[in-house]
Amino acid sequence: MSSPVFATLADFAAAVRAGRPADAKVLDRARARDALLTKPPGALGRLEDLAQWYASWRGTERPAVAAPQVVVFAGNHGVVAQGVSAFPSEVTAQMVANFAAGGAAINQLAKAVGARLDVHPLELDTPTADFTTAPAMSPQDLLKALQTGWNAVDPDADLLVTGEMGIGNTTSAAALAMALLGGEAGDWTGRGTGLDDAALALKTQVVARGCARHGASDFGRDSQTADQADEPLRLLACLGGREIAAMVGAIAAARHHSIPVILDGFICCAAAAVLHRLAPGALDHCVAGHQSAEAGHARMLDALGKPALLSLDMRLGEASGGTLGIAVLKGAVACHSGMATFAEAGVSTE
Amino acid sequence: MSSPVFATLADFAAAVRAGRPADAKVLDRARARDALLTKPPGALGRLEDLAQWYASWRGTERPAVAAPQVVVFAGNHGVVAQGVSAFPSEVTAQMVANFAAGGAAINQLAKAVGARLDVHPLELDTPTADFTTAPAMSPQDLLKALQTGWNAVDPDADLLVTGEMGIGNTTSAAALAMALLGGEAGDWTGRGTGLDDAALALKTQVVARGCARHGASDFGRDSQTADQADEPLRLLACLGGREIAAMVGAIAAARHHSIPVILDGFICCAAAAVLHRLAPGALDHCVAGHQSAEAGHARMLDALGKPALLSLDMRLGEASGGTLGIAVLKGAVACHSGMATFAEAGVSTE
Repeated sequence: MSSPVFATLADFAAAVRAGRPADAKVLDRARARDALLTKPPGALGRLEDLAQWYASWRGTERPAVAAPQVVVFAGNHGVVAQGVSAFPSEVTAQMVANFAAGGAAINQLAKAVGARLDVHPLELDTPTADFTTAPAMSPQDLLKALQTGWNAVDPDADLLVTGEMGIGNTTSAAALAMALLGGEAGDWTGRGTGLDDAALALKTQVVARGCARHGASDFGRDSQTADQADEPLRLLACLGGREIAAMVGAIAAARHHSIPVILDGFICCAAAAVLHRLAPGALDHCVAGHQSAEAGHARMLDALGKPALLSLDMRLGEASGGTLGIAVLKGAVACHSGMATFAEAGVSTE
Repeated sequence: MSSPVFATLADFAAAVRAGRPADAKVLDRARARDALLTKPPGALGRLEDLAQWYASWRGTERPAVAAPQVVVFAGNHGVVAQGVSAFPSEVTAQMVANFAAGGAAINQLAKAVGARLDVHPLELDTPTADFTTAPAMSPQDLLKALQTGWNAVDPDADLLVTGEMGIGNTTSAAALAMALLGGEAGDWTGRGTGLDDAALALKTQVVARGCARHGASDFGRDSQTADQADEPLRLLACLGGREIAAMVGAIAAARHHSIPVILDGFICCAAAAVLHRLAPGALDHCVAGHQSAEAGHARMLDALGKPALLSLDMRLGEASGGTLGIAVLKGAVACHSGMATFAEAGVSTE
């Protein structure tokens, strides 16, 4: 399948809006198969829904998860100048080196679940602008990051998890969430890598100032008008970061390639929220891998209508929660595609 | 390590009470290691606690999960004569055949998480007695089932999940839970494989009658006296089943061999509750793999003090939820033992 090159942000938005739905006939066949398997109806709970959803996106009634891909994007944020993170910006590049050396949590988790891991640092030496004083990215910067994310997806993958590393990016994600989904800065701002109360209060003010500056309150929860059609991308440019934009591009590319996605935590879901606001159903190929301990993630999942598979108080990012979710999905699909039917096994149904 | 042969139920109870604690020094070292790993403190949430707990039971600061064992016990129950199940007793043996042929959910899940699966049918042609009219098992029957469960555990395994198959066994488990943990029959009785409201009401009455007959209300939540020291085993004989008793034996054997256990759903936890009442701390080597959709399991986990790792509305039994939990534990241990420290990776800590 060809991968488009986007000349403008409007081209990207059009590609998102052109996303096709899952295969309803395959979904029906997968449901029919489920009813024949050697278990009481519904006894595998959410595993049944997951497997059927996965089948519908893969276009086959008995799918397998054979080639999961985890992609981690890294970016730096000018807003760290406001004192919003417990760690310095240098840590972003240091952690990218740690990913390359195999020493980070995501390396262990990707290996444990049998997933390929790719890491894409995005111009770490050129942080985005401080969004309290200027738009974080120009439209050209944003387009480049979206394209990088899109291109990072292997069209032959059969499952995608996107994640991030970027000192300061919970601040950016909180501002983006507020701008896209409404609410107050305090609803979305959390402790990130471990802020104390005073630093959390400062960070909340920074989020509020960013949203105030970039006119987010005009958008908020209201329905879009034609003029506002690409407003989510404007907000992404003003308040986001390159790694967040790359996740937007990657999640959209996965839809283009009919690759199901397991979303990671707060920052990944802020990226997903951009697509959610760009087009109804743009996240139908996504499930939420976990509910993060980061304040605001539960609210975000609620806004996206995505109940989490796991809730283990994780708040690391790096795609870690979504990648652990691969194990759940693999189990679900293994049951669905591998179990015997009542007839095959000679088991009485009543 | 030698495996004892129990001459009496008192011998078994003594073995349970002789269970040793985890290695506190290893736990301290594992905690110290965790603090050095390349992540913000606490950012892996419950994965951190899990890995440290696992390390403390395996006696090594950087453990691996290399040889997980899943054991499924099967038994038949005389109480099905009361009309408490949606499926006939023949299904127990039919599902054992399905396990042997590799067609059940647990076959797929064990394979997906890389665990060995063993299945032990226990005298399926000789159901236990109907506990509304007589004790389900004689002391000799109980002792035999406990020993079978104990012997089923591979001393070289490094993780154990126990599960069950037995038409009627949610009824037995509910009665046992009420007898061991107090409350009303309605607190513990659920729909099992899928009862309607009328059948659920009947099942609840059956549970209440069983507990009334076997004097369970004298035990309940009260502290044990010396005379009541082996009362949990008497209740297990009166209200339990062979597969439930075998899980009791297996979980106790795991403690003897310092093998951590992931508990499965409602019926497995009813077995665990016998140990919980036999000796304080008898379940310290156990975590709860999942919270089942079966009514009463949330209450049971609360009584055992075991928050679940997963909550996916599963209610299949067969060790399925506990086995999916192996994937979470493997991820936790992989991070703990495989990640680089800040010093190793050259990452700034502030």
